[in-house]
Amino acid sequence: MNACLRAATRKAITSGKKVVGIRRGYQGMIEGDFVPMDNSSVSNIIQNGGTILKSARSDQFRTPEGRQLAADNLRAQGIDGLVAIGGDGTLAGAAIFFEEHKIPLVGCPGTIDNDLFGTDETIGFDTALNTAIENIDKIRDTADAHDRLFLVEVMGRDAGFIALNSGIGGGAEMVLIPETLTDIKKIKSHIHSLMSQQHRSSIVVVAEGDELGGATQIASELRQDDTFANIDLRVCILGHTQRGGSPTARDRVLASRLGVAAVEALIDGHANVMVGLIDNQIRLTPSRNVYSRKKSINFELLGLTTLLN
Amino acid sequence: MNACLRAATRKAITSGKKVVGIRRGYQGMIEGDFVPMDNSSVSNIIQNGGTILKSARSDQFRTPEGRQLAADNLRAQGIDGLVAIGGDGTLAGAAIFFEEHKIPLVGCPGTIDNDLFGTDETIGFDTALNTAIENIDKIRDTADAHDRLFLVEVMGRDAGFIALNSGIGGGAEMVLIPETLTDIKKIKSHIHSLMSQQHRSSIVVVAEGDELGGATQIASELRQDDTFANIDLRVCILGHTQRGGSPTARDRVLASRLGVAAVEALIDGHANVMVGLIDNQIRLTPSRNVYSRKKSINFELLGLTTLLN
Amino acid sequence: MNACLRAATRKAITSGKKVVGIRRGYQGMIEGDFVPMDNSSVSNIIQNGGTILKSARSDQFRTPEGRQLAADNLRAQGIDGLVAIGGDGTLAGAAIFFEEHKIPLVGCPGTIDNDLFGTDETIGFDTALNTAIENIDKIRDTADAHDRLFLVEVMGRDAGFIALNSGIGGGAEMVLIPETLTDIKKIKSHIHSLMSQQHRSSIVVVAEGDELGGATQIASELRQDDTFANIDLRVCILGHTQRGGSPTARDRVLASRLGVAAVEALIDGHANVMVGLIDNQIRLTPSRNVYSRKKSINFELLGLTTLLN
Amino acid sequence: MNACLRAATRKAITSGKKVVGIRRGYQGMIEGDFVPMDNSSVSNIIQNGGTILKSARSDQFRTPEGRQLAADNLRAQGIDGLVAIGGDGTLAGAAIFFEEHKIPLVGCPGTIDNDLFGTDETIGFDTALNTAIENIDKIRDTADAHDRLFLVEVMGRDAGFIALNSGIGGGAEMVLIPETLTDIKKIKSHIHSLMSQQHRSSIVVVAEGDELGGATQIASELRQDDTFANIDLRVCILGHTQRGGSPTARDRVLASRLGVAAVEALIDGHANVMVGLIDNQIRLTPSRNVYSRKKSINFELLGLTTLLN
Repeated sequence: MNACLRAATRKAITSGKKVVGIRRGYQGMIEGDFVPMDNSSVSNIIQNGGTILKSARSDQFRTPEGRQLAADNLRAQGIDGLVAIGGDGTLAGAAIFFEEHKIPLVGCPGTIDNDLFGTDETIGFDTALNTAIENIDKIRDTADAHDRLFLVEVMGRDAGFIALNSGIGGGAEMVLIPETLTDIKKIKSHIHSLMSQQHRSSIVVVAEGDELGGATQIASELRQDDTFANIDLRVCILGHTQRGGSPTARDRVLASRLGVAAVEALIDGHANVMVGLIDNQIRLTPSRNVYSRKKSINFELLGLTTLLN
Repeated sequence: MNACLRAATRKAITSGKKVVGIRRGYQGMIEGDFVPMDNSSVSNIIQNGGTILKSARSDQFRTPEGRQLAADNLRAQGIDGLVAIGGDGTLAGAAIFFEEHKIPLVGCPGTIDNDLFGTDETIGFDTALNTAIENIDKIRDTADAHDRLFLVEVMGRDAGFIALNSGIGGGAEMVLIPETLTDIKKIKSHIHSLMSQQHRSSIVVVAEGDELGGATQIASELRQDDTFANIDLRVCILGHTQRGGSPTARDRVLASRLGVAAVEALIDGHANVMVGLIDNQIRLTPSRNVYSRKKSINFELLGLTTLLN
Repeated sequence: MNACLRAATRKAITSGKKVVGIRRGYQGMIEGDFVPMDNSSVSNIIQNGGTILKSARSDQFRTPEGRQLAADNLRAQGIDGLVAIGGDGTLAGAAIFFEEHKIPLVGCPGTIDNDLFGTDETIGFDTALNTAIENIDKIRDTADAHDRLFLVEVMGRDAGFIALNSGIGGGAEMVLIPETLTDIKKIKSHIHSLMSQQHRSSIVVVAEGDELGGATQIASELRQDDTFANIDLRVCILGHTQRGGSPTARDRVLASRLGVAAVEALIDGHANVMVGLIDNQIRLTPSRNVYSRKKSINFELLGLTTLLN
Repeated sequence: MNACLRAATRKAITSGKKVVGIRRGYQGMIEGDFVPMDNSSVSNIIQNGGTILKSARSDQFRTPEGRQLAADNLRAQGIDGLVAIGGDGTLAGAAIFFEEHKIPLVGCPGTIDNDLFGTDETIGFDTALNTAIENIDKIRDTADAHDRLFLVEVMGRDAGFIALNSGIGGGAEMVLIPETLTDIKKIKSHIHSLMSQQHRSSIVVVAEGDELGGATQIASELRQDDTFANIDLRVCILGHTQRGGSPTARDRVLASRLGVAAVEALIDGHANVMVGLIDNQIRLTPSRNVYSRKKSINFELLGLTTLLN
C-alpha cells in the first residue's frame, strides 16, 4: 500500500496538486485526521509493509450522519478528489459516499485475497502468495522428514486465489477452495492413495473460506475416521503472517502504476471508478461493478492442482 | 541437521572410517533401514532444511525387545559407533541403549527449543528464532496499521528460549514463558497501560508451554474481561513454520562443528556423551546429565523484555 | 526451471508417455547423457533454484556433425519429441535442429532477462527481479545512512526488463537501459539536482548492457568530472546472485503452466514452436519468431521511472 | 544499529535521563546536528537496517579544533555522557576525545567485519554473514548447474571472520583470508583436484583483504595459467549488499543488550570503555585496547574449511 501512496502522492504533486493524507481511512475522514503530504513524506517507504497512514474499520461511516461529517471535513479542508485503497468494503463505501456527496473518488484495489472484479491482480496478493509459499516450503521440510500429512490453511474467506496459486507453487498434493465443492469422501480416498504409494508425506492447502470449513474443521472430520488413525496429521494456520512484510517486486510495480493511474483518472474527471490492471493495461471499472460482480478463478490452474500432485 | 550429517560423514571418511546412514532414527535401526554414505551423499545439502535421513518416532525402541533388535542389526552391519542427532528423547534413548548394548554413541543436540543442558545453543534454534522474528515483523505491520493487540504463540513446550529471544528481537511489548509465573491480572493492567498511552498496538509473545496455556487460552481469558471489549485482539500461532527452512549461518557453522566433534569423540573412545558448545568451546557432557538437568534461561534477557517495551 | 521440468514430466507420464531426462542440454544429447524419469524423480524439487538436469554450452551443437550425433542418439533412445527450456540460443538451436532432423521440439522460455518474443514473461524473470530488489533495498539502507550515490548494475545484456522493474520497485532515482539513449550530460545534471535538494542519497540502476557501458564505466565517467568530487559514489554489481535461489510463487506457477502446455503442444502435433503466456493465456509462437523479433519494453513503466523519483 | 539506539534510549529514559540523538556521528557533533529523543522516537525501528541517526566520516574530528568545537556543542546542550556505536575509527576517535575533553563516553562495537577486540561478536556481523551465505547459496545453484568455478569476494579488509564463517556455512571448497598466507600454487593444485574428481563445480570464498588481493586479482592470476583454460571461472563481488537489510534475531538481541549495558556503564561512572559480549557475559574493555589489539580468528573453524570440502 505504501508504494501506491507514494506513487499517487508524487504524481499529484508533479501535476500541481496539493496532497493531504487521511489517516485511518473513512474513520479518519470523520475525525478529521488529516496530514499534509509532500515528496519527502513518502520517501524510503516503498519497501515497507503495512501503511504509513494506518487503517481502521469505521462503523460510523456506515451511517448517513457519519458520511455527512466526513464530507463536511473534506470540504473544509478544500479536498476535491479522493484516492482510496482497499477491498470490497472500501469500494462499497466509496460508491455510497459519492452518490450522496458527489466528491470524486477513484479506488485502488488493495486486498491480499485478489477477489476484486475489475483487475487481474490486487495490491498485496503477490506478497501474500509468496509468504504462503515460503511457509509451505518450510512445512514440507517437516512433512517430508517425518512422513506426515499437513493441512495448511491460507487466507481467502470468499475466494481461493491464494490457496490455488500457493498450492501449485508449493507443490501441494491437494487444494480445497470455496469455488469448488469439496467432497470429503473423495478427499479421504485421495489422501489414502497418496500416503500409501509414492508419497509418504502430503500437504493439503485449504482456503479459510472453504465451504467445508477451515483446516481445523477438516482435520477433525478426518480424525474421526478410523482409517486415519495411523496417519500423523497436523494443522498449520498461516493467519496474519500472510499480511505485512516487505512487498514483492511485482506488488511494488503494480501499486506504483495504479497509484499514478488513480490520480490521472481523477484529473481526467473520472469519479466513482476503480483503476485496475487487465491484460497488463490500466482499466477503469465503475465502483458498483467491483463489489457486485465476482471474479472467477482460472480453471486451467485448477486442473494443474490434480494433474501435478 | 543436514549440515551436521554432512560434517560427521566427511570427518569420518577422512579419518578412514566407513559410514552408514540410518534412515528414520531408532525405528530405522530396528527395521534395518541402512544406506551407505560417501562424500557425495552429503554434497549440496548444507543449505536445505529437514534431514535427508528422515526422522520418526519409535515406540518399539522404548521396549527392551526393540532395542535388542536394533543392536543385532547394527552388529550385523559391522557398525561399532553411533552419532545421534536429536533432543531430550533421543538422548534418553541413547543412554538406555548404551547401558544395555555397549555400542558407543555420541549425541549432537538437535532441537529448535534450545532446552538441552550441556550446550549453550542447540542445532536448529537460531533458524527457528529468525523465522519467528520474521513472522513477528510481518504481524507488527498489521498490528501497527490497525492498532491491534496480537498474541503470537511460538514453540517451546517446556522452555521459553524462542519466546524470550524472539520477543526481544521482535520488539514485543510482553513475553510469557514457562520459566516465570504469569499473573493474568498484571498482564491485563500492563496491556491496558500500553494500549492507552503511546502504543495503540501491542504484540505479546507466548511460549506454547506457558503455565497459563498457549495464546488461544490466554486470549479467551482476556476476552471474558469487559475492559477488553474495545481492544481488537488477535491470535497467531506460528506453529510448524518454525521448523524447516534453509538454516541460518550460525546454525550451519554450529552443526558443522558439532558433527566433526562427535566423530572425534567416538574416535577418542568416548561413549554415551553429548557434544555441545559452551562459551564457544566444544564440551562433552554425559548423556544422563543432558536430560536430567535443566538449562536455565538468561535472566539478563528476561529483564530486557520489560525494560525495552 | 525445476518447476517446469516437474510439470512436463508429470503431464507426460499422466498422458501415457515415457520420459527421459537429458542432462546438460544439447551437449548431453550429443554425449548421450540420458536419465530415465518418473514421478518421483521430480518430487520435492519445485522449491529449488538451478536445475537437476544441469546446463551447459555446446560448441559441437553449432556444427551439422554435432547435431547429427544428437539426432542419432535421440533416435536410438526412441525419443520422438523434445521439450527444451532456455533462452535465445536454445530456441535458435532448436529451430535448426528441427529443420535438419524433423524431431518435434517445443520450447519453454527460460531466461532471467525476459527478452523473448512470444511470452509476456519468461521463467526466472520474477525471481531475478525480486533478488535484485532485495539487494537494492539493502543498498538503500547504506546509501541513506551515509548520503551516498550508488550505481547498481543488474543483469540484462540486451534488454532493460530487470533494470526497469527493479528500478521502479526499488524506488531508484534513475534507470539506464539499452532500449533508450543515455545522455551522460543529462544524467550528471539530474544527479546534481537530486543530491542537492531533498535527496542526499541516490540510487541509479544500470542494465549491464546499457549502450554507455555498465556501472563501472559510467562511474569512471562521473568521477572524471570535477563537480562529482564531493559526492561519495559507489558501484555495486549484483552479478550472479540474480540467478539461482528458490523461485518465487509467480515463477513456479508460470513454469508449471508452461511445462504442461509444452507437453500438450507436442501431443497435439506441434513442432518447432515455443509456448508462452500472453495476456494470461497460453500461446504458441514459431521458434524462428522468438529469436528474430524483439520484445519491446513497456513505455508506461519507463515514464514511471522519471515521474516517481 | 537501530536496535542498539532503541535500547540505549529506552534504558536512559527509564533511568531518568534526557536523551539527545546526534545525527551523522562526530561530524554531527561538530555541526550541532542534535535531535531530542523520547520512547516513541525509537518505536518500530528494531527491524530496519541502516540507522535513523545516519552516519558520516568526519575529517574535521581528526583535528584538535574540530574536537574542541564538538565538545563546546555538547556542553552547550548539557550533554554529560556519550554512547557511540561503531568500529575501530569510532573507538579511536572516542579515546582521543575523552583524553582531551573528559566527557564520559562508552562505545558499542558496531561493524560487520567483527574485527574488534573486547567482544566475541560485533553488531552487524551476524546479519552480514547471513546475507553472504544466502548469496553463496544462490551462486551455488548456478555453479552446480553449469559446472563452474566461482570466486566469491566477501567483506573483510583486515579480517577473515565473514569469509571463514560464510565459507563453512556456504559449503565453500576453499576460503582465502588475510590471517593466513595464501599460496597460489597450492590453490591451483587444490582446485584442479576438486574440479577433476567428485566436484565439477567449486566455490572459493575470498576476503577482500586477502594479502594476494581480492577475487578479481586472484581470478586474473588463475586465468594466466594455461591449465585453467578449460575451467569456466567467474567472479562475484558481494559488496555493499552485505551491509543493510533487516537485522537477524541474534544481531537484534546483541544490540539490545549492548545498548542497555552502555547506558548502565555510563551511569556507573565508566568512561572511555567499550561494552562487549565475551562468553555470553557483558564485559567492559578500555577503548585503547579495542583498537590497539587484534582479535584472532578461531583456528578450529579454519581447520573445518579444509576438512569439509
